[in-house]
Amino acid sequence: MTSFRTTRRVEFGDTDMAGIVHFSNFFRYMEAAETEFLRSRGLSVSWREAGLRVGFPRVSAACDYVKPAFFEDVLDVAVTLERIGGKSLTYRFDFSRKGEAIATGRITSVYCREVTGHGLESLEIPVNIREMLA
Amino acid sequence: MTSFRTTRRVEFGDTDMAGIVHFSNFFRYMEAAETEFLRSRGLSVSWREAGLRVGFPRVSAACDYVKPAFFEDVLDVAVTLERIGGKSLTYRFDFSRKGEAIATGRITSVYCREVTGHGLESLEIPVNIREMLA
Amino acid sequence: MTSFRTTRRVEFGDTDMAGIVHFSNFFRYMEAAETEFLRSRGLSVSWREAGLRVGFPRVSAACDYVKPAFFEDVLDVAVTLERIGGKSLTYRFDFSRKGEAIATGRITSVYCREVTGHGLESLEIPVNIREMLA
Amino acid sequence: MTSFRTTRRVEFGDTDMAGIVHFSNFFRYMEAAETEFLRSRGLSVSWREAGLRVGFPRVSAACDYVKPAFFEDVLDVAVTLERIGGKSLTYRFDFSRKGEAIATGRITSVYCREVTGHGLESLEIPVNIREMLA
Repeated sequence: MTSFRTTRRVEFGDTDMAGIVHFSNFFRYMEAAETEFLRSRGLSVSWREAGLRVGFPRVSAACDYVKPAFFEDVLDVAVTLERIGGKSLTYRFDFSRKGEAIATGRITSVYCREVTGHGLESLEIPVNIREMLA
Repeated sequence: MTSFRTTRRVEFGDTDMAGIVHFSNFFRYMEAAETEFLRSRGLSVSWREAGLRVGFPRVSAACDYVKPAFFEDVLDVAVTLERIGGKSLTYRFDFSRKGEAIATGRITSVYCREVTGHGLESLEIPVNIREMLA
Repeated sequence: MTSFRTTRRVEFGDTDMAGIVHFSNFFRYMEAAETEFLRSRGLSVSWREAGLRVGFPRVSAACDYVKPAFFEDVLDVAVTLERIGGKSLTYRFDFSRKGEAIATGRITSVYCREVTGHGLESLEIPVNIREMLA
Repeated sequence: MTSFRTTRRVEFGDTDMAGIVHFSNFFRYMEAAETEFLRSRGLSVSWREAGLRVGFPRVSAACDYVKPAFFEDVLDVAVTLERIGGKSLTYRFDFSRKGEAIATGRITSVYCREVTGHGLESLEIPVNIREMLA
């Protein structure tokens, strides 16, 4: 299990009229943390190889909300790569504020490669990417 | 089980560089469909009673993505109130395009009422709201 | 001067902690209204011709805010094509609520066509598109 | 004229199907940079005093787009407080990437204070805030 830590400061535009971070923004926060994690490994969520798109589109995403987050909060985000499957990656994201749990999310992404004229095709994650993730 | 149908047209700003609806936007689509459902019952996701906020903040949200959705697609959204608990509501949202499944999501919301100086407190869903939802 | 009318209902996720529509969302509302206008003329903001992207990316956008808009408000949006230049279109968007002015925005878009390996190139708006807009 | 510098990394969810940062997101970037500037002066865009909301809601916002910005770009943002009026502040935001101009935006915000039961009222910017901004 791989773990990676980053932080995220809540922006004014992330809040809603209830005065808290709108629940949909946690999914943006997760994706940004996932991207940071992948970048730290020399990878990304989307790139091009020989002119064709390669990347990790998501097949599922979920979040449980424990406590609200507020404008200007600095959230700690722990990214854990819970499972490396044949074609997919499952991440867990633990959001906390000064040690207090705020939310826990999960994203499952599938390794895909563009096939000219056929859209995206899911594939086995290549060994070199597997090694970069481990 | 209560079912409600609406549609949602994909806007340009909902897409990402992969050319498809960004996964986080399905959560906005769900919330808008939930709001429309509640409005059709004379309710809302957030309102005020005697100056205090009352509503249904969410405690969990999830989505499984089956096929991508594209700019200008008109998505059919079926809202099913899967479970009316003591304090919570669980909705299922089935997104489809011309009969083809695109995504399925779920949101669980908890009935809450503002307590002056104490933030929000979850409460039993009152009988009159229960009847409006049934 | 061409005028087109549509409406937009404010969603919960469009609001911010000040309890009003976040100012950035008016730009999404404008783009959606522009797209609707173009669709009513058989056009779009982005499409493909012979595999290459064609469309109207924006070069400037502005908005003046008169009164706040609130959750569940139904805004009237009047789209006026103020100027059809050689390569560009300038729209004005008048937002109102029951006759009361809420905001006025402007977007200038430039007609562009993808040039293989050279990104986008601005071009004279073709006669057929000019006629569809008039 | 006061100047402040920050950076912003483009996230995947900030892009649109044209493969570039969606134009509306520059307004979020501006607001975040404005907030950072205000925070560096011990201020914010929205806070509470004696239980009432105080802050700088915007009355106008504009952006000129020069070059597109792409996923993972790190944009330099220069915040210049162009004008301190009696009740308002006008900021200019210069976005660049490795010295190349990307976009220039402006936001005008008005100092407002909540009046119980009367919504927000614009007021002269107090001397202490003026001094913190200078």
